[in-house]
Amino acid sequence: MTKSYIVGLDYGSESARGVLIDTATGAQVGSHVHAYRSGIMTRSLGDGTPLPANFALQDADDYVEAAVEILSRLGRGRLVEGIGIGFTASSPLPALSDGTPLSRLYPHEPDAYVKLWKHNAQCYADAINARGGPFLDNFGGRVSGEWLLAKAAQIAAEAPQIWAATERFIEGGDWLVWQLTGKEARGLGFAAYKAQYSVARGYPVGLVDGLESRLSAPLPVGSAAGPLSQEWRSRTGIQGNAIVAVAVIDSHVVLPAIGATASGCFVGALGTSAAYLYLGAEPAPLPRGIEGMAFDGSMRNLWCYEAGQASFGDTLGWFVRTFPRGANMAESFEAYNGEAADLGPAAGRLVALDWWGGNRVPFADGNLAGLLVGMTRETTAAEIYLALIESLCFGARSVLDLFMDNGLTPDRVLMTSGLARANPLLIQIMADTLRQPIEIPQIENATAVGAAIHGAVAGGVVADYTEGASRFGARAMTHTLPRPAHADAYRSGYEIYRDLCGQSALRVSMHALRRLRAAPQG
Amino acid sequence: MTKSYIVGLDYGSESARGVLIDTATGAQVGSHVHAYRSGIMTRSLGDGTPLPANFALQDADDYVEAAVEILSRLGRGRLVEGIGIGFTASSPLPALSDGTPLSRLYPHEPDAYVKLWKHNAQCYADAINARGGPFLDNFGGRVSGEWLLAKAAQIAAEAPQIWAATERFIEGGDWLVWQLTGKEARGLGFAAYKAQYSVARGYPVGLVDGLESRLSAPLPVGSAAGPLSQEWRSRTGIQGNAIVAVAVIDSHVVLPAIGATASGCFVGALGTSAAYLYLGAEPAPLPRGIEGMAFDGSMRNLWCYEAGQASFGDTLGWFVRTFPRGANMAESFEAYNGEAADLGPAAGRLVALDWWGGNRVPFADGNLAGLLVGMTRETTAAEIYLALIESLCFGARSVLDLFMDNGLTPDRVLMTSGLARANPLLIQIMADTLRQPIEIPQIENATAVGAAIHGAVAGGVVADYTEGASRFGARAMTHTLPRPAHADAYRSGYEIYRDLCGQSALRVSMHALRRLRAAPQG
Repeated sequence: MTKSYIVGLDYGSESARGVLIDTATGAQVGSHVHAYRSGIMTRSLGDGTPLPANFALQDADDYVEAAVEILSRLGRGRLVEGIGIGFTASSPLPALSDGTPLSRLYPHEPDAYVKLWKHNAQCYADAINARGGPFLDNFGGRVSGEWLLAKAAQIAAEAPQIWAATERFIEGGDWLVWQLTGKEARGLGFAAYKAQYSVARGYPVGLVDGLESRLSAPLPVGSAAGPLSQEWRSRTGIQGNAIVAVAVIDSHVVLPAIGATASGCFVGALGTSAAYLYLGAEPAPLPRGIEGMAFDGSMRNLWCYEAGQASFGDTLGWFVRTFPRGANMAESFEAYNGEAADLGPAAGRLVALDWWGGNRVPFADGNLAGLLVGMTRETTAAEIYLALIESLCFGARSVLDLFMDNGLTPDRVLMTSGLARANPLLIQIMADTLRQPIEIPQIENATAVGAAIHGAVAGGVVADYTEGASRFGARAMTHTLPRPAHADAYRSGYEIYRDLCGQSALRVSMHALRRLRAAPQG
Repeated sequence: MTKSYIVGLDYGSESARGVLIDTATGAQVGSHVHAYRSGIMTRSLGDGTPLPANFALQDADDYVEAAVEILSRLGRGRLVEGIGIGFTASSPLPALSDGTPLSRLYPHEPDAYVKLWKHNAQCYADAINARGGPFLDNFGGRVSGEWLLAKAAQIAAEAPQIWAATERFIEGGDWLVWQLTGKEARGLGFAAYKAQYSVARGYPVGLVDGLESRLSAPLPVGSAAGPLSQEWRSRTGIQGNAIVAVAVIDSHVVLPAIGATASGCFVGALGTSAAYLYLGAEPAPLPRGIEGMAFDGSMRNLWCYEAGQASFGDTLGWFVRTFPRGANMAESFEAYNGEAADLGPAAGRLVALDWWGGNRVPFADGNLAGLLVGMTRETTAAEIYLALIESLCFGARSVLDLFMDNGLTPDRVLMTSGLARANPLLIQIMADTLRQPIEIPQIENATAVGAAIHGAVAGGVVADYTEGASRFGARAMTHTLPRPAHADAYRSGYEIYRDLCGQSALRVSMHALRRLRAAPQG
């Protein structure tokens, strides 16, 4: 009998990763990573055109290059049953109605490129939020400056000629599916969480001139967008049904890979930013502060509630890059983790607010910024590093509190991503802070495997996600338990953190800082 | 004609420095530095006895060793007319009535040692302030935890057997004069600013059991304590009248060396901490927030108003030591200064509160701590360094504002110390922030030269400080002017700084942090 396979693609911020899974054994038999040629453009375009503050762009053609490279390497000559894609979000781009990205036509125009998730159009979000409307009901009454509506509004306002040329405004993940199948098919997750689509009401109307006509109705996760096109079969050498599933938000796509397919799971996807997902069988009134909820947008036949931290691993990466302690990041992390592990909770009597990328819960305000308080002449670098780790865990705790205060009580707490496995100190402090045992799924390339399971569902390889999880997902979990003495100490630190969060005068100061402009150099 | 000399001794935190000046030419003909054998003890005594938090001790015998070394090197075989001493303050020690320091008798007892200025007994200061009384009239209604009264209260409460054995409680500078002359003679500056002595009322009474009997009435600055004793003439080989002046607070003693001997001078002594002095001919009602005022305690026949920052150069030193950018401190400072000089004001949109050593103005609260706000994932190390420099200047500006708001308007602004000459970027930003031209006296060893001029006054070499300044003080000044565009930009940054200073909830959080204790490690 001929072997058959599923393929999962994980499109992250810096690179795309693919895995090839044997459908019979469930084993990962191949994987490949391809870095984007242009990376993340924050200061200038490739041609040197300078970018405004808070811009973070990508080139859609880099996604195609990565897909050709990965699918050829993994799939050439093989029978592929299904292909699934996880993608950063909201990372939308303007395109023509034939899928041509506007960046090919207007290479010198920043607004013609993909606006990566971390690109923040906060003032446009503020304006949308000020208008309000029922489309915000499932989104805590607020859209974020990182989401699609704000980004569309920014192009319409700042680059009207680009907006006029835009025929489709589409998430990078949905656009990639379109490239692979030759057919536009959007995922419900992107549409719901990032563009406030609801099955009952459709997309919000009248917010951005002509936006509705540039969108299209989405399909539930696990839906087949269509088979891989003939053109792509030639480019990659892939054979078989090769059904491409609709794309899924990268932090959500991982769920089946780590066995989180049932109600009662609380999952932390700890990456450069952090997303927290709670799966529930029934809709609950959206607690204030939770960013969004949708049905069929993350896991089939379940509601998924989402909240997050705008900067998570990014904050630790920032510290280690800014204040290196070794020849490379890995050495620096090892040095800081080693020192920090020897310290007790809040050893430097420092507390940070984890707002290096602004705040999502509860303020949904990208103009807030990081804070560190308590420094003395005796404070050490490792104490600051520890305070940053603690602040990330305090932020997670405030998310979990919000869920639990609203009856969304977890049966299980899982944490996933490379960071969760690479930094046991972080996970230990997370367990201490959450006062919950934490399960860490032991699986390589979890996000890409999750994407592959979506491909397996769409391609009919498995009956549902639960079967997909048991055949292709994590086989083992490690459990990290809270340390009682540390948990008590962290209760005090968390109180101070919460108190600082609640100080509105401090947020006013952060806004004033954001408005400060450097004077001409004298 | 035989040459004659004056000698100035500058007892700092880490070492003592001496200069030898030719009375005929005014030239510095010799100088010598001697580091204290035990340095500053913050974690343990020399025998390993661990120290409580906030302790910072010195060994009085180190002062004697330094005096023998420096006076021998500079004075042996020479005709010395006068000797003056500047000393850190408040740095008191317990002694017997013959001058024996208790640390010689109780070498394992932390409370038997000199409590260096930065040693903070805040809770005892709080208790004294809660009682209050007219002795606080000239001191803003508050004593600091760094001052003599709080330190005496701490010994009486925490080490009653040491307090019982204490016959004299005396500033290190006064104690050194006693050693050199064989006769106890205290300086009015120490007594007034650090022990709330006034000529009219004497020392405050009833605050610490038996303290009054362990003190003695002080003499105005420039008074002769007496000639160098026979014993010390033998030890050092010094000849001549060798009149020793009463000791002076180190940040005050510098005044005549930089030509600040008249009313209307505002002087910043920028060291590890910063002291700001204003000289006035008439007494003014003490503005709230200014730490102290005294007549005859800094400059003869003038009032001197004092305010300060608990951590100044220490804060920059902390940053550079904690996050090095070179093989040593000097290289790191050069690297950071170079990068920061290329940045505009508030380039990172960061603001700091300069409270790494607690706050003196306006809160007089050693339990406050440093704060840094505005960090993003793009913040650079140099931007943080710049924000620290700016915060030090904002702190200075809030002191100057306080003086000016109360009619103490400067005719001249002078900044002195090694830091002022070594860090032109700091002085430029200081001028931008204060919106005042700043004079930097061009003189080596300014503090020690100032001490020597006190010796010259006491020894009758000169008629007064003005003559002393013109014969032995700085011959040249550099002037740093504000840059108008930068000054405007810094006005916005300063507003945010002042706003943060005023947020009482933030100070409550700092106090909560200070109470946090590390839990046992699990």
